Amino acid sequence: MSILVVGSVAFDSLETPSGKRERVLGGAATHFALAASFFTDVRVVGVVGEDFLPEHERVLTSKGVDTTGIERAPGKSFHWTGTYLRDLNEADTIATDLNVFAEFAPKIPASYEDSDCLFLANIDPMLQARVRAQMPNVKLVAGDTMNYWIGAHRENLLPVLRELDALLINDNEAKMLSGESNGLRAAEKVMELGPKSLIVKHGEYGSTAYFSERSFGDGVKRLPFRAPTVPLADVVDPTGAGDSFAGGFYGYVASQGSLTPEVFRTALFYGSVMGSFAVERFGTERLQETTRQEIDARFAHLKEMSHLS
Amino acid sequence: MSILVVGSVAFDSLETPSGKRERVLGGAATHFALAASFFTDVRVVGVVGEDFLPEHERVLTSKGVDTTGIERAPGKSFHWTGTYLRDLNEADTIATDLNVFAEFAPKIPASYEDSDCLFLANIDPMLQARVRAQMPNVKLVAGDTMNYWIGAHRENLLPVLRELDALLINDNEAKMLSGESNGLRAAEKVMELGPKSLIVKHGEYGSTAYFSERSFGDGVKRLPFRAPTVPLADVVDPTGAGDSFAGGFYGYVASQGSLTPEVFRTALFYGSVMGSFAVERFGTERLQETTRQEIDARFAHLKEMSHLS
Repeated sequence: MSILVVGSVAFDSLETPSGKRERVLGGAATHFALAASFFTDVRVVGVVGEDFLPEHERVLTSKGVDTTGIERAPGKSFHWTGTYLRDLNEADTIATDLNVFAEFAPKIPASYEDSDCLFLANIDPMLQARVRAQMPNVKLVAGDTMNYWIGAHRENLLPVLRELDALLINDNEAKMLSGESNGLRAAEKVMELGPKSLIVKHGEYGSTAYFSERSFGDGVKRLPFRAPTVPLADVVDPTGAGDSFAGGFYGYVASQGSLTPEVFRTALFYGSVMGSFAVERFGTERLQETTRQEIDARFAHLKEMSHLS
Repeated sequence: MSILVVGSVAFDSLETPSGKRERVLGGAATHFALAASFFTDVRVVGVVGEDFLPEHERVLTSKGVDTTGIERAPGKSFHWTGTYLRDLNEADTIATDLNVFAEFAPKIPASYEDSDCLFLANIDPMLQARVRAQMPNVKLVAGDTMNYWIGAHRENLLPVLRELDALLINDNEAKMLSGESNGLRAAEKVMELGPKSLIVKHGEYGSTAYFSERSFGDGVKRLPFRAPTVPLADVVDPTGAGDSFAGGFYGYVASQGSLTPEVFRTALFYGSVMGSFAVERFGTERLQETTRQEIDARFAHLKEMSHLS
């Protein structure tokens, strides 16, 4: 199945304990699309400015990602400046220059209308809802959000949550969205808001998937599932780890044609694998050079690291 | 194989979001011994005061725990007062009344001398070293410690670390002991200090075991292993979770007769299982009423929650 992803395509200027980079290609849709491209056809809807050059587009198209839906607008692309010098697990934002992204009005190319799966990356929930409404025939919808939308735009976010087969958020976002500090209670409350399934990311500690009776259409509520991460000695740049996780997860799901419990669980492992590659170098560098062989090897590694014989 | 555990036998007065309890039976050796008692013979070395009544001793002896080595001293037992109202993952100590524990000088009964495995619970490393020296013929030695000993008694702790087949500590302790914030680098540095293997506990996110070339005596260095925890909707009292984890882990190892990689990994799952029971009620209440059948069911549950088919 093919995936349509809507989200940011941006430039990031960042500093981590490993070094400093100016204006490297980034954005949620970029990381997601690259990670998912190893598994299935991916189409991107986004907006960029005049500083988005053919060399940037080639990062996506060289992996077979369809960029027809990346609109060119007069001005500059979204530019985020941040640092991880204080804490490698939490970015400190120095500047958010929305530029052309401030007026982003997603347009779906006609050639994207047959997309099977929709991924609503972390953008204004009003835009997420608009894109969802324009794609009435998709088979699966997954999405991301963040503390800002949960806090200040909750009324706009709630209708989006009701459309989701799977919501991917982190521990703090789950607590904020539910008002519950206990992880399991938080998950139950979040699923009551609408998502059929919920994936909560725990950073270096992996992720937990929670299921409802609606997860697989059979009325059966399954046990949560915990997927580990690969311990890495060198985390160079955490930017895009969550989006790459989402791309690996959803890309694998789409490649399998249907969402069974085993596909869902296996997809979490592929999410961990793609997230682990993403952080090994700055920006999209590592995802660009990853091979399917490396992905399979790390998947086997992750299984060996977590399975009893 | 039998286990000798040396550590605190104490009373805890505590408050959690679930309620308040005064002077419930606790202490690292108590929680450890109860958890391990489901798997193998356990012998306790500790000290208590005149307030330790036959009803308290029966909590241990009714599970077959040998209490010959619990010395009775004039005065009161160790009494810890704490609260988890601020953070269920981190106790705030209100009072530590060492009482008879201040003069604790561990004595090994003759009937304990044939113990196969030694567990050095979290006590003064000088006492850990003394007990280790008194048990020259044990086949395995595992142990715990805490931030206080790592910070202020490092020179006494280092010789103990060199004696350990496995050290069990949490993330912060591993970082403090190694001076490294990255988990994998911290683990490598800690093992360079002596422990053949290292188990780092991540609280609600499970644990990771790290191995060295010395872990299994065959010169082979294995991948780390990650064990999950059971998501619980109600954590009533986290006191003793780590000691119960250690008891489940080491009890299972001892029950298997030798420390192979698969025994080690499986033991981590039993550690998670016993830790998850411990926190479901106050003090030792839940461990006292657990059955082997419940333990096996939760082990199967944990495997289902983390294994791809």
